[in-house]
Amino acid sequence: MADVTRVSVPQLETFIARAFEAVGIAKSEATIIAELMVRADAQGSEGHGVFRLPQYIRRIKGGAVNVKPNIRVAREAAGMALVDGDNGMGHLVMRFATQKAIEKAKQAGVAWVGVKRSNHAGPASLYAGMPLEHDMIGLYLAVGNANHLPPWGGIDMLLSTNPIAVAVPADEELPVVLDMATTVAAYGKVKTKAQRGEMMPEGWMMDREGRPLTDPKRANEGFLLPIGGYKGYGLALIFGLLAGTLNGAAMGKDVIDFNADDTTPTNTGHVIVAIHIEAFQPVVEFKKSVDALIRDIRNSERLPGVDRIRLPGEGSYAAREDRLENGIPLPAPLLASLNQLAAELNIAPLA
Amino acid sequence: MADVTRVSVPQLETFIARAFEAVGIAKSEATIIAELMVRADAQGSEGHGVFRLPQYIRRIKGGAVNVKPNIRVAREAAGMALVDGDNGMGHLVMRFATQKAIEKAKQAGVAWVGVKRSNHAGPASLYAGMPLEHDMIGLYLAVGNANHLPPWGGIDMLLSTNPIAVAVPADEELPVVLDMATTVAAYGKVKTKAQRGEMMPEGWMMDREGRPLTDPKRANEGFLLPIGGYKGYGLALIFGLLAGTLNGAAMGKDVIDFNADDTTPTNTGHVIVAIHIEAFQPVVEFKKSVDALIRDIRNSERLPGVDRIRLPGEGSYAAREDRLENGIPLPAPLLASLNQLAAELNIAPLA
Repeated sequence: MADVTRVSVPQLETFIARAFEAVGIAKSEATIIAELMVRADAQGSEGHGVFRLPQYIRRIKGGAVNVKPNIRVAREAAGMALVDGDNGMGHLVMRFATQKAIEKAKQAGVAWVGVKRSNHAGPASLYAGMPLEHDMIGLYLAVGNANHLPPWGGIDMLLSTNPIAVAVPADEELPVVLDMATTVAAYGKVKTKAQRGEMMPEGWMMDREGRPLTDPKRANEGFLLPIGGYKGYGLALIFGLLAGTLNGAAMGKDVIDFNADDTTPTNTGHVIVAIHIEAFQPVVEFKKSVDALIRDIRNSERLPGVDRIRLPGEGSYAAREDRLENGIPLPAPLLASLNQLAAELNIAPLA
Repeated sequence: MADVTRVSVPQLETFIARAFEAVGIAKSEATIIAELMVRADAQGSEGHGVFRLPQYIRRIKGGAVNVKPNIRVAREAAGMALVDGDNGMGHLVMRFATQKAIEKAKQAGVAWVGVKRSNHAGPASLYAGMPLEHDMIGLYLAVGNANHLPPWGGIDMLLSTNPIAVAVPADEELPVVLDMATTVAAYGKVKTKAQRGEMMPEGWMMDREGRPLTDPKRANEGFLLPIGGYKGYGLALIFGLLAGTLNGAAMGKDVIDFNADDTTPTNTGHVIVAIHIEAFQPVVEFKKSVDALIRDIRNSERLPGVDRIRLPGEGSYAAREDRLENGIPLPAPLLASLNQLAAELNIAPLA
C-alpha cells in the first residue's frame, strides 16, 4: 500500500497513553487503554484502533466521557453481575467487567456480566478473547455507538451494528475467534474507506430510496444493510435488548451518535459471558475436539477457485504476527490527523 | 390454499400422543411431546411439527431413540448445568433442561444449561419461550440434526443450520421472539416445499458447482447457504461449538443425518440460557422499555411499498391465534402420510 508509515507497537502505545494523560486520565489507566487500542490495530481491526483516538479525545474534551470513573459492580448474583461503568472509557469498563466475569465463572461455571454507563470499547473480540487464557470461552455482545441500521422494511435508523464476538480455545490450533457486526459491514469499515478515499462494494449500504450507496463520503445519506435481511435485523434487535435494554443502557432512539456528538454520555451497554470449560468436561479433551473440528474444516473439499478454507480469527492472528514484527501500518491521512492531535495536546508527534 | 384439511389442536395432540404410546412411550410423556409438537404447528413452524411424526416414529422403531430415558443432570455449578438426555425424545430432554435453567436462574440470576445425548426437539423458540412466564429471557442454541452447510468456500457439508432463538417479554406488547437458522432457509422449509411440490427461491441452496439450486426434490445434490456469507458460516460454527462440542455432543462430521438414518443415536446438543430480569432491574421497568422500543420500531418510517414493520415473533403469534380458532392446516400429502402411519401403528386415523 502506498503512503503508509509503519509504527512500532510500543511507540504507538506510548503515543496513545500520552494523549489520554494530556486530557486528565491517570497514567496507569491511560496505559491500559493504549495497550488495548494498539491490540485492536495489531489484529487488523483498523476501524477500532488508533483511528478512533482523535474522536475519543474530542469527546473527553467535550465532557462526554468521565476521566476519573468509579467503575463498580451495581448488582450481583451467583451467575451474573451488572457493572456500572460510571461513564468511563469503554476499554477500562469492559476490562473490569471481563475480569469480573472470569472470576465469577471460576465458581459458577458460567457467568454473565452486563454493563451500563460505558463507552465505545474497540473491537468486540478484545473482550471475548480475554477468558481464553483462563481456559474459558468468551462471548461478547454490545450496542453500537451510532444507529446506522433501520428495522427491516424501514428507513428510520433505530438500530446499530450491534456486534457479537465469541472466542473458543483450541489445543495445538489457534483459537476460533468470531467477531462480527450484524450488518454486512461495520460502520468503522465505512469510515476507514472514506479516510482512504476508496469506494464501498454494493451491498454494504443503501440510500433512503432503497438504492445502493457506494461512496463512503455520502454515508450520512443512507444506512447499513443487515446480514440475511430480516434475520440480521432480528439479531441486531435481540443483541441490543440483551446488551442495552436489560442493563438499563441506551438502545433504540436513545443511542447517541458518538461520531457527531462530543458532549453527551452514551450510556453504552455490553455483555460479557465467561464459560469455564472445566465445568462441562476436561479442558484437554475439549481442546482436542476443537483441534479436530478445525482440521476437518480446513482440510475439507473446496469450491472451484477457492485457495484455502479459513477459520474465524485466522486473519487477525496473521495480521498480529506481521504487525508485532513490522509495526502498525498508518495511512498518511491517519498519521497526519494523529500528529495534528499531538500538536493540539502539546505532546511529541508520532513520526 | 387448496386441498388442506384443518384439524383441531386437541384432535392432533391426541393423535400424536397415541402414535408415541403405540411405540412404547409412557402416556404422560407422549402427551408432553404431542403438546409441544402441536405448539410448533400452531405457531406456524410447519417444518418442525406433526410433519416430523413419521420420521420420529421410524427412528424409534429403528432403535435410534430411547423410549424410556433417564434424563438427568450430569454436572452442575451455581450458574450452569449439563443435562444428559439419555437419548430420549428431544422434546422431553429440552423441557427438562429448560425447567432446570429456570429453577437455577431464580437463584443465580442467569443459568446456562448445556444438553448432550438428546434428539431433534422441534423449533428453537419452543424452549426459548418457556422462561417468559417466569419473567425471564430465554436464549436457545442447538446443533442441527443433519449437515447441510459447508464451511465458507467449501463443499463438504460439515455444519448444520445451527439455530438461535431468543425470547424477550414485553408489558402490553407481545414478546419479541427471534427464531432463526444461520442458513438463509432451514432444511425443514426445504422439506416442506418438496412435500407441497413448490420450487425454492434462488439463494436458499447451491449445488456443488456453485450454481443456484431451486428444486427441493434435488436438495441432496447441493447445500444450504449461510446468511451473510462467511458471517453465517461463523455463527453456525460458533453455535455448534457451544451447543455441541462443549457439551460432549455431536458436531462436525459426527452429526448423524436423522433424515436418512433410522438406527443411530444422534447425540444432539443444545443450550438453554435463562436470564432472570429481576437480577438486572425491576421487571416492570424492563417490560415498559421493551414496549417503548417495539412501538418506536413499529411506528417508524417505511421504505416505499412496505405496508408494515414487523417485530420478530409477530407472525408466529398471528398464526397461533388463527390455528387455535380454526385448527392446524394439514396439506393433503401430509394428512395421507399421517393416516398411513396410523394404519401401521393400528391407531385411529386423523380425519
